[in-house]
Amino acid sequence: MSQYRVLIDANDEIGLVHKVSTVFFNNNLNILSNHEFVDKESNKFFMRSVLDGDIDKNKLINEIKNVLPSNAGVKIVEPKKKNIIIMATKELHALGDILIRHESGELEANILAVVSNYDALESLVNKFDVPYVTVSHENLERHEHERKILESLSAFKDVDYIVLAKYMRILTPEFVDVYKDKIINIHHSFLPAFIGANPYKQAYDRGVKIIGATAHFVNNNLDEGPIIAQEVKHIDHSYGWRDMQRLGRDVEKIVLSRALKLALEDRIFVYANKTVIF
Amino acid sequence: MSQYRVLIDANDEIGLVHKVSTVFFNNNLNILSNHEFVDKESNKFFMRSVLDGDIDKNKLINEIKNVLPSNAGVKIVEPKKKNIIIMATKELHALGDILIRHESGELEANILAVVSNYDALESLVNKFDVPYVTVSHENLERHEHERKILESLSAFKDVDYIVLAKYMRILTPEFVDVYKDKIINIHHSFLPAFIGANPYKQAYDRGVKIIGATAHFVNNNLDEGPIIAQEVKHIDHSYGWRDMQRLGRDVEKIVLSRALKLALEDRIFVYANKTVIF
Amino acid sequence: MSQYRVLIDANDEIGLVHKVSTVFFNNNLNILSNHEFVDKESNKFFMRSVLDGDIDKNKLINEIKNVLPSNAGVKIVEPKKKNIIIMATKELHALGDILIRHESGELEANILAVVSNYDALESLVNKFDVPYVTVSHENLERHEHERKILESLSAFKDVDYIVLAKYMRILTPEFVDVYKDKIINIHHSFLPAFIGANPYKQAYDRGVKIIGATAHFVNNNLDEGPIIAQEVKHIDHSYGWRDMQRLGRDVEKIVLSRALKLALEDRIFVYANKTVIF
Amino acid sequence: MSQYRVLIDANDEIGLVHKVSTVFFNNNLNILSNHEFVDKESNKFFMRSVLDGDIDKNKLINEIKNVLPSNAGVKIVEPKKKNIIIMATKELHALGDILIRHESGELEANILAVVSNYDALESLVNKFDVPYVTVSHENLERHEHERKILESLSAFKDVDYIVLAKYMRILTPEFVDVYKDKIINIHHSFLPAFIGANPYKQAYDRGVKIIGATAHFVNNNLDEGPIIAQEVKHIDHSYGWRDMQRLGRDVEKIVLSRALKLALEDRIFVYANKTVIF
Repeated sequence: MSQYRVLIDANDEIGLVHKVSTVFFNNNLNILSNHEFVDKESNKFFMRSVLDGDIDKNKLINEIKNVLPSNAGVKIVEPKKKNIIIMATKELHALGDILIRHESGELEANILAVVSNYDALESLVNKFDVPYVTVSHENLERHEHERKILESLSAFKDVDYIVLAKYMRILTPEFVDVYKDKIINIHHSFLPAFIGANPYKQAYDRGVKIIGATAHFVNNNLDEGPIIAQEVKHIDHSYGWRDMQRLGRDVEKIVLSRALKLALEDRIFVYANKTVIF
Repeated sequence: MSQYRVLIDANDEIGLVHKVSTVFFNNNLNILSNHEFVDKESNKFFMRSVLDGDIDKNKLINEIKNVLPSNAGVKIVEPKKKNIIIMATKELHALGDILIRHESGELEANILAVVSNYDALESLVNKFDVPYVTVSHENLERHEHERKILESLSAFKDVDYIVLAKYMRILTPEFVDVYKDKIINIHHSFLPAFIGANPYKQAYDRGVKIIGATAHFVNNNLDEGPIIAQEVKHIDHSYGWRDMQRLGRDVEKIVLSRALKLALEDRIFVYANKTVIF
Repeated sequence: MSQYRVLIDANDEIGLVHKVSTVFFNNNLNILSNHEFVDKESNKFFMRSVLDGDIDKNKLINEIKNVLPSNAGVKIVEPKKKNIIIMATKELHALGDILIRHESGELEANILAVVSNYDALESLVNKFDVPYVTVSHENLERHEHERKILESLSAFKDVDYIVLAKYMRILTPEFVDVYKDKIINIHHSFLPAFIGANPYKQAYDRGVKIIGATAHFVNNNLDEGPIIAQEVKHIDHSYGWRDMQRLGRDVEKIVLSRALKLALEDRIFVYANKTVIF
Repeated sequence: MSQYRVLIDANDEIGLVHKVSTVFFNNNLNILSNHEFVDKESNKFFMRSVLDGDIDKNKLINEIKNVLPSNAGVKIVEPKKKNIIIMATKELHALGDILIRHESGELEANILAVVSNYDALESLVNKFDVPYVTVSHENLERHEHERKILESLSAFKDVDYIVLAKYMRILTPEFVDVYKDKIINIHHSFLPAFIGANPYKQAYDRGVKIIGATAHFVNNNLDEGPIIAQEVKHIDHSYGWRDMQRLGRDVEKIVLSRALKLALEDRIFVYANKTVIF
């Protein structure tokens, strides 16, 4: 199959769908699916097309750019497996869910490695023939620790996404800059509620009747990156915070895997600290 | 404002988006929002566009038809209030929800009348200055009763939709034919589960843990028309069937109003006993 | 029917269920339903029983108190209609939902009056033969305005609950003190997210994928009272903040009416700024 | 810890809570949590208590039975790990979810073995040091095949539950009788909708807007056993039946694991082809 994904963002103006679809038509490309969205507030146009046909990538990008406003973004992606690295700490539910999906062939991804600050998950990961790298943070300053992680990561080329599957350490802006819009985190609360440490304890103390989880890209402000997916569960007064945590794990792993799937299928546009998801 | 909705369905072939958007572009029409969907199984193409600009409706329809396969459907709708008639029996929650939305100005519709086989809801409806027509079914055969209703309805011109807000009588094919794809019903179950009478009692007997409601267009097979919207609520063993019914009312009214809104905004395509909803 | 609700809260100790149920048994009272909960963290015991039989209220309260720790709370409620006052501003969806439920006989309550700082809802309320009191806040300081409202409210005796059905003004601690644990508010967000003004705008700016509403008792800290019920809806990038607001209205009205129902049925215990709900 | 679970079902009569709690009190047992439910329609009383203290099991059962109607059921369970066997066919999502939970220590169970009619899942199961038994159905009549499975199962003693984690073969009444109320199945639809083969295809053809999954005990009527848990997901017209299947897998595994957890914690009573769940 010769299917390509074309991702376009541009300042909106009259006729964009017409112009782009004319380029597709002139190149004898069949549109298998097509989504557009115009954010009227920011006057931004987004388009994701899945095309069938023979493509000269560079030529097509140029032709599309020629009909778009000057600062438009155009990306053409062959649907091949992406490379991901998973970071985790000690909890295995989110990591385990990804490993099982990978094993089932459901994930369009190669897992290059799992990186952790503990060795607690090594035996699980080894079962799945995935390399496990422990970079302990003990006796290290945050920047030193991160430098060692970045060194480990540098062994892996063409990393498309880093998935924080309950990695319980805060990343510095220096780290985040290296993998801008490529780090997906699962936060164990319905953001922006309960930012910060132990959100289930915070939720318990507040007496909420619903708990949730949020998958988001990581930016330089902790827990404030663009949200990809959220999900919730109803609870009642009988839930202590550890019960919330237990129930929350199911939400966390499903939401993180859903966000990862959206990323692997090139369905997410990031702008204005938000996401457009087709 | 000069906003128009263009609704297209056609057999799919390469270049349809290109061809239609070219017609829009040549007519100097701005696409405010655009949705397409191709059902690959049946090779059917659907498109809904909201356009801004000056339109000669007949000319535009012709130009669009000229670029589409021969049996394509093209409809252009000015966004003006549609005319609806509500049919009900004795329960007021679904009817009341629509009346309140109408009162708040939220509904793009004129309520021409409420028609019922009882006078139980008359005092409520009169509060809202909506005509109320009682057509009792007592001592009448089904066809006779329907003929009398159709007579009453014939007084109202340009009826866009008939909303069955818990109208508890079965409509015959003859009736349905008169208002094909225009009758919206709320069924008090998660269809296709619990077709037929007293679905809450059936659900109770089966011991389900979730109840639901389904808004659908009415066709000639009872409870088997194209589904527009569905919603559910979790329950537990402590719910008797009357508790389910009480809880179910909230689901029913919200789902029916949501389906009505989709219809009034021309967002629904019906085909193959299903709906495509943009 | 001679059904009574017995509400007990006490410091927990061994044998409370035994002791209380023995009192019921000795009084020849049948337990129709019974719920207990022990909050282990605060060592608090809660119990709600629905009893069938002949009751001498004061005698029964004394007998129950005699078997409980000294500072226990015991309340016996006959299931009769409670008296409520609704406060609103200009939006009619939440108020309308309560009026319709009242009209249908679903609500175990008398609506004594609707009080508003505008006359915008007067014609709607009058349809339902409910007194409408406008107390304009124009040219008044907050305390002056509240004093005038309290004066109006003082005309109504035995007020069980005040329901803020989108009353858009902040109440002072003085006002709240008068109706402690009796004021139910609907907040148009999934608290504690988006406290304060225009939460839908805040939610839009943050790019959330779920919006919600929270019914809670009002205490002296704005938006921080004990939560009674919460509900959510999924949204996507195509929702502007006004779309969120429109969708949110359905959530708001359902959640507020659900919270009101729980209150009217004496199912809510308030403690530690939380609720236990049976 | 000396925590016991007491499970009682009996015909309802006045004073049952009093009588049972008096036995607990006289034995100096502390009630950690307590749930009762009376099904008024069938006049059945259910109670689950978690007790703390020293217990002589047989003596306590006798004392409780002495205060209950003659045909009452009383069971006392020490909270120790239960023994389960998982049956599967080729899909690994539901099985994988249980294996990961087991690995994390979240499951109060020993997995004695995984039994399948294919060897497709053997390498996955072996990773987790769980015995894998393949009993191929090829060239065997249904009863012969089941006899061979029962033989394999007979090697495992004290089996508390058999979990059908997408075991795609119908079990005969003979098989079910051996493990009455001990076989938990996940059905890939929102029962009772779409009984039988390929429910996602059926759901697609019907054009539903929500799909679901149902965990239930297996009885002699296919897909008609007592329902334990159900969950749903919203879909739209863009979902082909394979998309529904993919999304459905997440629902299936979460619902099955939730049902298993309820069973392992002795929270489920089965009667009248329904469940009471505390």
